[in-house]
Amino acid sequence: MKSSFKVKLFIISLFTVLSTPGFISAQDKKPNFIIIFTDDQGYGDVGVFGHPTIKTPNLDQMAMEGQKWTNFYVAANVCTPSRSAIMTGRLPVRTGMYSNTRRVLFPDSDGGLPSSENTIATLLKTSGYATKAIGKWHLGHLPPYLPTNHGFDSYFGIPYSNDMDRINDVSAKEAFANPKHNYFNVPLMRDTEIVERPADQNTITKRYTEEAIQYIQENKDRPFFIYLAHSLPHVPLFASQGFLGSSERGLYGDVIEEIDWSVGQILTTLKKEGLDTNTYVVFTSDNGPWLVYNEQGGSNGGLFGGKGTSYEGGVRVPTIIWGPGNVQPGVVSKIGSTLDLLPTFCSLSNTVKPNDRVYDGFDLSPVLAGKDETPRNELFYYHGDRLFAVRKGDYKLYFYQNNPMGYPAKVEKLDTLQLFNLAHDPSERFNIASENNQIIEEIQALIQTHQSNMTFGPTQLEKRIEKN
Amino acid sequence: MKSSFKVKLFIISLFTVLSTPGFISAQDKKPNFIIIFTDDQGYGDVGVFGHPTIKTPNLDQMAMEGQKWTNFYVAANVCTPSRSAIMTGRLPVRTGMYSNTRRVLFPDSDGGLPSSENTIATLLKTSGYATKAIGKWHLGHLPPYLPTNHGFDSYFGIPYSNDMDRINDVSAKEAFANPKHNYFNVPLMRDTEIVERPADQNTITKRYTEEAIQYIQENKDRPFFIYLAHSLPHVPLFASQGFLGSSERGLYGDVIEEIDWSVGQILTTLKKEGLDTNTYVVFTSDNGPWLVYNEQGGSNGGLFGGKGTSYEGGVRVPTIIWGPGNVQPGVVSKIGSTLDLLPTFCSLSNTVKPNDRVYDGFDLSPVLAGKDETPRNELFYYHGDRLFAVRKGDYKLYFYQNNPMGYPAKVEKLDTLQLFNLAHDPSERFNIASENNQIIEEIQALIQTHQSNMTFGPTQLEKRIEKN
Repeated sequence: MKSSFKVKLFIISLFTVLSTPGFISAQDKKPNFIIIFTDDQGYGDVGVFGHPTIKTPNLDQMAMEGQKWTNFYVAANVCTPSRSAIMTGRLPVRTGMYSNTRRVLFPDSDGGLPSSENTIATLLKTSGYATKAIGKWHLGHLPPYLPTNHGFDSYFGIPYSNDMDRINDVSAKEAFANPKHNYFNVPLMRDTEIVERPADQNTITKRYTEEAIQYIQENKDRPFFIYLAHSLPHVPLFASQGFLGSSERGLYGDVIEEIDWSVGQILTTLKKEGLDTNTYVVFTSDNGPWLVYNEQGGSNGGLFGGKGTSYEGGVRVPTIIWGPGNVQPGVVSKIGSTLDLLPTFCSLSNTVKPNDRVYDGFDLSPVLAGKDETPRNELFYYHGDRLFAVRKGDYKLYFYQNNPMGYPAKVEKLDTLQLFNLAHDPSERFNIASENNQIIEEIQALIQTHQSNMTFGPTQLEKRIEKN
Repeated sequence: MKSSFKVKLFIISLFTVLSTPGFISAQDKKPNFIIIFTDDQGYGDVGVFGHPTIKTPNLDQMAMEGQKWTNFYVAANVCTPSRSAIMTGRLPVRTGMYSNTRRVLFPDSDGGLPSSENTIATLLKTSGYATKAIGKWHLGHLPPYLPTNHGFDSYFGIPYSNDMDRINDVSAKEAFANPKHNYFNVPLMRDTEIVERPADQNTITKRYTEEAIQYIQENKDRPFFIYLAHSLPHVPLFASQGFLGSSERGLYGDVIEEIDWSVGQILTTLKKEGLDTNTYVVFTSDNGPWLVYNEQGGSNGGLFGGKGTSYEGGVRVPTIIWGPGNVQPGVVSKIGSTLDLLPTFCSLSNTVKPNDRVYDGFDLSPVLAGKDETPRNELFYYHGDRLFAVRKGDYKLYFYQNNPMGYPAKVEKLDTLQLFNLAHDPSERFNIASENNQIIEEIQALIQTHQSNMTFGPTQLEKRIEKN
């Protein structure tokens, strides 16, 4: 009996090994990670998240094959702090990547992500990963802060927002309404060198995609991490020939549909190279839609507010996590955050996180594997250095209010706290504070614990290059 | 050569016949039709239409296997006129199923759908169909108007809204906040007889589903048409044991998730019986969400307005059309209407529509088959007898305005016309009338043609039973 059992087990094991695509099993090779991070794409700007006229067949398919996360957040409602959080797993107030006055880095900024911070790339390198950053960085464009000084082997992209360096002889209105790439004198860099200026943004999504595909093909024999941060759909909007003028949604739709094509290209490459069953791909956005740009801004899909606010529309982002055989397909309404990617990737790759600092992320790998447990039940919504709101379970308690459009900002302390049940009321229509003292007290206790463990880093965003 | 070609052809044909599930090919048997029609379910109240916490795995799967229609409409923003339109393929103003004062039928109403009107069931019967109505009718509850007098072989359901006949000794607020079925003395009918009163609404979705499944099983050898019009999620909300208390979205979510379960049961039955490849299933809703019921009302998913309005949120409904092998899977953003189901079903079943009257529906069968052509490029949004707005292509021109919440209604003629591009601006935020005179003129010409062919029927909704 015993020996026949062993033979059976051997046959089963053999079958398992043989049937694993790529043939190198997870024990032999650490999984690859790809983050696809878009800029200002709203919660509602994906077909499967509800947009009526933007067609995203590749993202829809990715969501069916993977996990569609409907309560996934960024840690800040604008670009630079949001990007610092996804890279470090730490809140911007800890790393210094926050400010109440200059909320993001500008071309005249002198600061960036401190070299004392570890990024996902820094840590994965200790596990032997090849690391590549493509696209928008926005964590400092001066040499000490560039991706190649933050754990990435190489970099190709525009180091800050694609609307910066606007030339003087065209009005802002005209420049955004009928964008031409030479209205925006932004640099395109390879590693630490500027290789094109102004960057030809018409083809930027295509070129980022080609760079990613080439990297996958060249690194298929070792574990890799690609951080592909698209410069779009941040205004000014650009799309390649073949996409330009093709979407029912207009130019904004053209841009998203090209990004959708890009996602399809990347997943197809992974499948072709036999890497799909050993790669985790995360698709998400850096903050909500820039509503004040009207038709050229995106959609919050029925959430409240947009970019620049800590209402749900400003910080809840359309997120899909994909990994055939490793990520259990389904819709996940548990709370997730870009803060969680660093600890999750460390867990999945057996990479050690140095314990000399506080992390704000949780290891979501049990949720990816389809287990019904989650380590995250809370969320702290900072706006600059102000704790704007806190979520615990389904409940979100507000201490501040803002212009829901985000711009001009009008952040004011509330006289009376407001409480919403986000599970029942995702559009935040019904303030239920008066009937829920107990919940408010629980959230306040949670904040006390949070604050007892909080040290604010000195802001890096207010430093400016001294002009001669 | 020639004879070997014939042999090949024979083999291919044999294979085709053998591989057709059910074995009776489309030539031999007319296709079955099932309409699943929910009550007050909003555009955003399905996972794949964007709801973050309502889980609808069966509808999501149905959408992936079939067509998700993102621009599908009802012909009126409240129940009775909307239902008259889906049944007759004619605008309520033609059939008399409209009123500016009593917008739907009530228990004291004396009217109903005139016997001179043909329903989908009446016409399909001429092609030998078995016909069954289940659920809410609301086209007249007195004998001449019941389903069995409008082409249906049999009927099982609550003949009007599930909130009617509210008993006097409970306040409206309490009755809706904590619904109990005996607060609402509504009848449950089988054919023309009341079989239960008050209807036990706790189990109503389950019982409707069982009735539909039994009908499919008993009629699998002949073509059938099932009109399954759920009484829910119209308030008061009820769900069966097993669903009650199970949704993250609260009671409203419980109700939708039970309806989703019901959809899954029906599609599974079709597959088990080998009928899936010869059945068209349409899932849709009768109007937008009843927003004034707060958490107990649904979500417009980022569209503007709700039930009782002719804004998009009031009349654009989450729609999925499914038919493996017959319906080309994909997302369809072409314009469709419940008015189109009658002509489409007639076309697919070779049923003759009597040409003694005007129809307002179009034959959508080319779109279902995946062709890039569509017969519908326009939509007339009536509110009672008022032409509230008209859509031509992507453009919607408004002549009236209303309270976007729907209740209390405040329908007023606009001083200045308003125009929106629904493809670019699905939330109707940007009035572009001033820049688009040409489009406005085209729409006005379209209206002239429409009106030249319009005869208003006498209203049936204002007739009341005389009290002794």
